[in-house]
Amino acid sequence: MVQKKKRNVIVGQSGGPTAAINSSLAGVYRTAIDRGYNKVYGMIHGVQGLMEGRYVDLSDHIQSGLDIELLKRTPSAYLGSCRYKLPEIFESKEIYEKIFDILAKLEIDCFIYIGGNDSMDTIKKLSDYAIISGSDIRFVGCPKTIDNDLALTDHTPGYGSAAKYIGTSVKEIIRDSWSLETSHGQVIIVEVMGRNAGWLTGATALAKGEDCDGPDAIYLPEIPFDMDAFIKKIKALLKTKASIVIAVSEGIRTKDGKYVSDMDKSVEYVDAFGHKQLTGTARYLCNIVSAECGCKTRAIELSTLQRAASHCASRVDILEAYEVGGAAMKAADEGDSGKMVVLERLSDDPYQAGTEVKDVHKIANDERTVPREWISKDGTYVTNEFITYVRPLIQGDVGPIMVDGIPRHLYRPGFQDIL
Amino acid sequence: MVQKKKRNVIVGQSGGPTAAINSSLAGVYRTAIDRGYNKVYGMIHGVQGLMEGRYVDLSDHIQSGLDIELLKRTPSAYLGSCRYKLPEIFESKEIYEKIFDILAKLEIDCFIYIGGNDSMDTIKKLSDYAIISGSDIRFVGCPKTIDNDLALTDHTPGYGSAAKYIGTSVKEIIRDSWSLETSHGQVIIVEVMGRNAGWLTGATALAKGEDCDGPDAIYLPEIPFDMDAFIKKIKALLKTKASIVIAVSEGIRTKDGKYVSDMDKSVEYVDAFGHKQLTGTARYLCNIVSAECGCKTRAIELSTLQRAASHCASRVDILEAYEVGGAAMKAADEGDSGKMVVLERLSDDPYQAGTEVKDVHKIANDERTVPREWISKDGTYVTNEFITYVRPLIQGDVGPIMVDGIPRHLYRPGFQDIL
Repeated sequence: MVQKKKRNVIVGQSGGPTAAINSSLAGVYRTAIDRGYNKVYGMIHGVQGLMEGRYVDLSDHIQSGLDIELLKRTPSAYLGSCRYKLPEIFESKEIYEKIFDILAKLEIDCFIYIGGNDSMDTIKKLSDYAIISGSDIRFVGCPKTIDNDLALTDHTPGYGSAAKYIGTSVKEIIRDSWSLETSHGQVIIVEVMGRNAGWLTGATALAKGEDCDGPDAIYLPEIPFDMDAFIKKIKALLKTKASIVIAVSEGIRTKDGKYVSDMDKSVEYVDAFGHKQLTGTARYLCNIVSAECGCKTRAIELSTLQRAASHCASRVDILEAYEVGGAAMKAADEGDSGKMVVLERLSDDPYQAGTEVKDVHKIANDERTVPREWISKDGTYVTNEFITYVRPLIQGDVGPIMVDGIPRHLYRPGFQDIL
Repeated sequence: MVQKKKRNVIVGQSGGPTAAINSSLAGVYRTAIDRGYNKVYGMIHGVQGLMEGRYVDLSDHIQSGLDIELLKRTPSAYLGSCRYKLPEIFESKEIYEKIFDILAKLEIDCFIYIGGNDSMDTIKKLSDYAIISGSDIRFVGCPKTIDNDLALTDHTPGYGSAAKYIGTSVKEIIRDSWSLETSHGQVIIVEVMGRNAGWLTGATALAKGEDCDGPDAIYLPEIPFDMDAFIKKIKALLKTKASIVIAVSEGIRTKDGKYVSDMDKSVEYVDAFGHKQLTGTARYLCNIVSAECGCKTRAIELSTLQRAASHCASRVDILEAYEVGGAAMKAADEGDSGKMVVLERLSDDPYQAGTEVKDVHKIANDERTVPREWISKDGTYVTNEFITYVRPLIQGDVGPIMVDGIPRHLYRPGFQDIL
């Protein structure tokens, strides 16, 4: 059998950035080159940029083994990201024709998309269109999200590093709170990302150990938030401790589905995409606690640092992200399309995991939340099973490459001109 | 000459905590033991706790060389801190009598206090009282503050680690902002601590390097804040860049001395000491920018993490803090009183610094701010001289001692009972 000559690969990043998404990009690039592909293109700002003809030749950017290592340690989406959802094929065939024209022009054989639920939806639709239109381009998805809410995979690259940063930072916040505690009491409320899934907020429990009690309560979005019970709990805690640290998800809602962050009418945030931003949950709760309990309060939002802190990345996470990128490229090279790479956990202790390839049609748009049995009975903490699950994912460090005291990232020459 | 038998030492921590203050505590302890003192007591919550008879025997807590290393890597004030300013001696002699009674009971020879301006004021008053009352107890101050606002010393332990964390985090925030930039533009405003001195806010410029442009503008409290000029600058920047990151000090004020954070009437924070908390500067400015420029905004407060992030500490800082603690103990042992240890910079390149002992009367209550010539002409950035000054202080890392993926701190057994 005559092997068809390998042509080009294109890779894109989509959705919220993470500390590990560029490690997957490095994995895709390395495997594509190793497997004999000619060019590896990078879409600027995902399919949205691609449709506008914005892409780069990645070999202009990754020129050495050192660049690969820098890229693995560079947070945020190196190529830029987008939050763009393709329309249904029957709704807008022109968009698909346009994308496939560009891919044909670039002589693309493999299309790899690194992202979360929306990105897997993109892979699903593009691979479907390839079948309809008789294209032999292969479309494979590579999972990524700090939210850890993708179905079918044991966990998602990006989550482990975010969890490690959150556990570390909350432990430091707890320590800090001890220094100026007073008999009046103080309540610190830490707000963590996660609109519907409490994987990140639950990771605050990682602060707990022989040297730290961990947060005093954890409120996940999976459990309806009860303001009266919350205040009652704070008051009870204040009787036993001078300093209390509470973790809340930005997405906690009351029984009737109303976001707690929506209760504060004085502030409203809408992002550029018209999504309401859920900031202000901790701040609002602090105001309530201050009024109800008469104590000092402080609201701390971990904000974008929790998804960008590559200086505190998990080694397991960065290496898995790299492997998953390579596995996605390998799958596409070997003929898979309409697939996503997933991580399968083989064992907790010692931790072992491997990659598998699954049908993307079974994954897209399905949000995985924390199972009820991994949340304490009264809904204000995570169980030991949760910790057993997350602990292996935060192991080991990826020393940043420090230059003059600050972590070095991979530079993006000439990007300003394409943006 | 017969050497007087050495008795006991007491050490306390005061003011805002830092990532390095416990390294100074470790230095005091180690040098006291090395120099043959019998017991090293630690005041719980500074002189305030001491007056209530709250202290520990530090040898119950530091039992090995490993404990010393853990303590150097433990953020926040291990002994607990206070914000207590002693009254003038003539105003309340009883307070001084009470403190000296406790010190006599504990057979104290040396009293070391680690802290900032208020703490040096405590050293000054206690050493004055010792002279008046004929006590031969020696009182020596050990500088500490992330704010870097102490006079006579080249810099203060705690500042370097905070600066390193701030530079690193702002660089990651800038990277993160690139991923989802849109043609509408977005403005991210990062709020940094520092009520009157801009040393920490200026350190955001450390993010600037070959791989990062750094923040687009930096607003220090030393320069009166002009809202019109600020909006004009943002509008001009938005014409050239899709994503803008601005650093502001929590303490910026308008020409008439009004805090920007006070302009937002909807929120008011007062801490347990009745000090108004200056949070909300970035949030308020974001609301203004959003209204004036019609773009997406995000306010990020680095909050207490900037003073507690020992996972990102500077090696130079942690080692200097340790040395300064040892030097304070040495000075007291050799008979100094009413003194503070300072750091003297001998050279920028290669960086060399040593300790000296200065009269605390010349230091107390004098706030050192960023010199005007280290701020750009238009007042919206720091100069290269500023960077040359701060760069050596953030060099090198202190690897946290990681246990199960999270930094380990020195435990505080039994502290709950004393608090």
